[in-house]
Amino acid sequence: MRTMGVQMNFQPVLDEIVATLRPQLGQGGTVASYIPALASVDPRQLGIALRTCDGEEAGAGDFEAPFSIQSISKLFTLTLAMQRVGDALWERIGREPSGNPFNSLVQLENEHGKPRNPFINAGAIAVADRLVSQALQAGGSAKADILALMASLCDEPIAFDSEVAQSEAASGFRNVALANFMKSFGKIDNDVGAVLDTYFHQCALRMSCRQLARAAAFLCRDGAHPIDGHADVTGERQTRRINALMLTCGTYDAAGDVAFSIGLPCKSGVGGGIVAVVPDRLTLCVWSPALDTSGNSLLGMKALELFVARTGLSVF
Amino acid sequence: MRTMGVQMNFQPVLDEIVATLRPQLGQGGTVASYIPALASVDPRQLGIALRTCDGEEAGAGDFEAPFSIQSISKLFTLTLAMQRVGDALWERIGREPSGNPFNSLVQLENEHGKPRNPFINAGAIAVADRLVSQALQAGGSAKADILALMASLCDEPIAFDSEVAQSEAASGFRNVALANFMKSFGKIDNDVGAVLDTYFHQCALRMSCRQLARAAAFLCRDGAHPIDGHADVTGERQTRRINALMLTCGTYDAAGDVAFSIGLPCKSGVGGGIVAVVPDRLTLCVWSPALDTSGNSLLGMKALELFVARTGLSVF
Amino acid sequence: MRTMGVQMNFQPVLDEIVATLRPQLGQGGTVASYIPALASVDPRQLGIALRTCDGEEAGAGDFEAPFSIQSISKLFTLTLAMQRVGDALWERIGREPSGNPFNSLVQLENEHGKPRNPFINAGAIAVADRLVSQALQAGGSAKADILALMASLCDEPIAFDSEVAQSEAASGFRNVALANFMKSFGKIDNDVGAVLDTYFHQCALRMSCRQLARAAAFLCRDGAHPIDGHADVTGERQTRRINALMLTCGTYDAAGDVAFSIGLPCKSGVGGGIVAVVPDRLTLCVWSPALDTSGNSLLGMKALELFVARTGLSVF
Amino acid sequence: MRTMGVQMNFQPVLDEIVATLRPQLGQGGTVASYIPALASVDPRQLGIALRTCDGEEAGAGDFEAPFSIQSISKLFTLTLAMQRVGDALWERIGREPSGNPFNSLVQLENEHGKPRNPFINAGAIAVADRLVSQALQAGGSAKADILALMASLCDEPIAFDSEVAQSEAASGFRNVALANFMKSFGKIDNDVGAVLDTYFHQCALRMSCRQLARAAAFLCRDGAHPIDGHADVTGERQTRRINALMLTCGTYDAAGDVAFSIGLPCKSGVGGGIVAVVPDRLTLCVWSPALDTSGNSLLGMKALELFVARTGLSVF
Repeated sequence: MRTMGVQMNFQPVLDEIVATLRPQLGQGGTVASYIPALASVDPRQLGIALRTCDGEEAGAGDFEAPFSIQSISKLFTLTLAMQRVGDALWERIGREPSGNPFNSLVQLENEHGKPRNPFINAGAIAVADRLVSQALQAGGSAKADILALMASLCDEPIAFDSEVAQSEAASGFRNVALANFMKSFGKIDNDVGAVLDTYFHQCALRMSCRQLARAAAFLCRDGAHPIDGHADVTGERQTRRINALMLTCGTYDAAGDVAFSIGLPCKSGVGGGIVAVVPDRLTLCVWSPALDTSGNSLLGMKALELFVARTGLSVF
Repeated sequence: MRTMGVQMNFQPVLDEIVATLRPQLGQGGTVASYIPALASVDPRQLGIALRTCDGEEAGAGDFEAPFSIQSISKLFTLTLAMQRVGDALWERIGREPSGNPFNSLVQLENEHGKPRNPFINAGAIAVADRLVSQALQAGGSAKADILALMASLCDEPIAFDSEVAQSEAASGFRNVALANFMKSFGKIDNDVGAVLDTYFHQCALRMSCRQLARAAAFLCRDGAHPIDGHADVTGERQTRRINALMLTCGTYDAAGDVAFSIGLPCKSGVGGGIVAVVPDRLTLCVWSPALDTSGNSLLGMKALELFVARTGLSVF
Repeated sequence: MRTMGVQMNFQPVLDEIVATLRPQLGQGGTVASYIPALASVDPRQLGIALRTCDGEEAGAGDFEAPFSIQSISKLFTLTLAMQRVGDALWERIGREPSGNPFNSLVQLENEHGKPRNPFINAGAIAVADRLVSQALQAGGSAKADILALMASLCDEPIAFDSEVAQSEAASGFRNVALANFMKSFGKIDNDVGAVLDTYFHQCALRMSCRQLARAAAFLCRDGAHPIDGHADVTGERQTRRINALMLTCGTYDAAGDVAFSIGLPCKSGVGGGIVAVVPDRLTLCVWSPALDTSGNSLLGMKALELFVARTGLSVF
Repeated sequence: MRTMGVQMNFQPVLDEIVATLRPQLGQGGTVASYIPALASVDPRQLGIALRTCDGEEAGAGDFEAPFSIQSISKLFTLTLAMQRVGDALWERIGREPSGNPFNSLVQLENEHGKPRNPFINAGAIAVADRLVSQALQAGGSAKADILALMASLCDEPIAFDSEVAQSEAASGFRNVALANFMKSFGKIDNDVGAVLDTYFHQCALRMSCRQLARAAAFLCRDGAHPIDGHADVTGERQTRRINALMLTCGTYDAAGDVAFSIGLPCKSGVGGGIVAVVPDRLTLCVWSPALDTSGNSLLGMKALELFVARTGLSVF
């Protein structure tokens, strides 16, 4: 049963979730280890923050601590590309779940270099290629466009962690393979190096739960800007579509299971963050660095389950 | 923007949708042709019906015409298996989108005979195997259990179309292959023939849009029986989970696209029917026999798009 | 360096191979265990026999002990089908290595039910279907045709082991799946049950190394009948082609490795037998029941390696 | 029937083959078009040359015309790597047919970055990586090592076509993807750029049929140097193994068909050349630029079929 229309005070809910899960910190899951800057993060951290569609905010635990947002950035580059390219975006990128681990090349080969959706690595690289093309036309840079969007959404400056970006570039052979593979099918227009530079930087955005809950708040209010309600980040239909993509494709190969157990559109990253949306109500961000076998934050998912159980909020 | 809480009169909406789409009848798509009983259906039919969580019903076009519900039956056998087997069901069947055409064997092989979800053919056959086991223990029959569930949900008798069931059995070599393949992995307990007899019969259920909208109405009211509100067909959490599965896996390889364009949990069948759920509001059934290339009803999907556009109802 | 043209006395070579390997009996590999009749075979057996193109025979170890020839039968049913159907056979069956475990369904799906070659299970079932069609036209039976061919080649009666055939049928769900899957693509003409009955019986042929070396001796003499040199079992070109198929596809997923390490056309079976051909010289059969991880006889392969090393015979 | 031991005069055979096929020049197949330097080659050329194990040479048609040897170079880099690395080579590269088009990534992913064999692109890139490692240790360069080997085998200087090498590098996105993909699995030790520079250059070797027949002549004489019979290019066992690999993997996805129809170890290239070996007798090189759908020279394959039919030479 959903409790739409009832005003809730979320602060005690968040406090209780953090109190419940804090004893489990450090007891399961594994911090992403493919680059030193992620491997050295203390796993005993847990933060949770939300922003309602009316602009109220709440937070608990380490909700002010900045972390590497990694794949959560795919949400914002997709939004930027939908703004700038419109429906032509879908000529290059599909909208179906991948049914395979997030960086699989098999389906990319079967489908001639067109990634299944914008949230697998190949899809996000294809989105970055679109942003690079747009920025070149406008005489700007895709990286600057991304920073500008994030700063506008958060109403405060956001920066890349250049150490993380360099580490990603130095070890990202699989992403180099993906980009060149798509290029071999004619599905990447720009220089592979420039596209990947954008991609490695977007993954290296450094933000807190509070900032992410605010930045993604347009998704719970039909696309209206989180702070400036007169501006639209995206239109209502576009917003619904982003939420639908999050639900079906936002959490790697666990999307079906997350829809089943949590029932909210989510986008996760291997830095341990997860953004979740309750349409017409609120946007939520949880963070805890240790990951489960699917690459999603172990305690982050538990926090979302508790939130849904406590509040009765779910899209289903 | 969603219009939750506002009372709507849906009859004019359904009438308008049928009036808008009727000129397109017979102009696109293809009726399923793999068995004569389906191939001979007149494609120039279109029906739409709904039942709200408060028990109001509306219908337009050919909403009283019975048709072969085919894969929509997977919704009801899943419900029955969740009632009877509980969480043990998921030891045999996954909950992830398949990322492949609906009857693909590839993932079944990679995952050692465990189907990705209960809505692909292999998954529904595995569900039927669970029902056969339960019925054997209880001294009954899975086919009788299915008819009893449908009659209870609709408050009127429902029957198998035995001609369709026989045709399915005579031509269903791929389903025989799927069942034997799972059996070779030890994932089917009962005699393959008995399991497939159940499966071929469930696909041959003959129902109208009105009956299906009513039968699936428990999905829009947290599992409460469509007619007898004091009884629960499934619990609230189970109901959410079925809706989540419909959204991520209910429309073959087009699930991502349907979530993107329509934004409602849907389950389709090659007979041309589609059941859709607006949680806390209503259950809808559309029917038109001509199919698009994904195997979903062409005009049925257009009807759902119009419904969402007219009413603003969507889970996102 | 090959020693073509030099007359050799092979009896001491075979004796030495058996003496060298006998201490290793029972020390590695696993007997096929999927049916009781194979699981109960004593693994401490080793036989080797050969027949030259001039009709001389030699044998050592358990070369007179009968065993289940299993997939080696695919060699003889292919020969029979090439005799009867000619080049039309290749409309239904490919000639390329499978690049996957021997009973994989993946490539069968990708290639619309046309098996990659006649030596994978699917291919042999498709060959059996051709034999059933031929026998039906002639008013006979495919099983009788196979027994007649084997008796003619060996110059003595050969029989099916009916206990093995029944066990294969009772547990062969994967082969039932393969046959129905091909039938769903329209690539099997006859009743699946009749085709599989033929297939399960051919696998259950019971022969000794001596008999198999004799039966396959037409392959080392350009197709001429092993005993009656005036008759041809197959033509010269056909014989070359069978040898080529054995080399590229005859030993499951190890064909490349066997070509690399042994360099002779071979066909193996999970009963532990292997037939090998030295064109223009001799046909060899080795047998030892314990299998390596590829499903080929562990000591059988070692025996062939020793034979090639001792004699210098290889096609390369 | 093979005619081993009979002295043959091959010049008239080659002349006849060229005369027979010349009318078909320009009538079928397609010249490789992925780089300008190959696309501009006149398809109406046909050459054939051979060198016997006794050192006799014959040639007909355009057998002195140099062409881009492309994948035929994989034969020589494999030979060099077997000389230098020995059996350790096979820790990085398999020996099984690929069962898929020559540049597929699917099996590479399934097998964790270990290419199926040294004749698919991924395998040849892994071989190049081994050569780069060896050259670095010796203070030399892999490209210089390759040129030195070719000059020694031909007894005359051989050069890279630097225009072709640059074109390959500029358009070889799929090979860049393959190399980075293997690197992501830890299967490439050196800088991807250096490895690919070697690979793109080896493909750009420019040689004639006469030169290639001579250079590969060690394969028909148990590894003895084509010209200096006292030196060994490879040992007898290694030579057999290279021939076995050519037969099972040397002609892309048509290897089974080529073994079936021609019955000789062959290695082809998209420049239109094919090297074939008759062990203990001769090495043959045919060339005609127009390719069939498998990427093998259309008239080259016909020339080999005619050669086998005229001479009776085949390994089977």
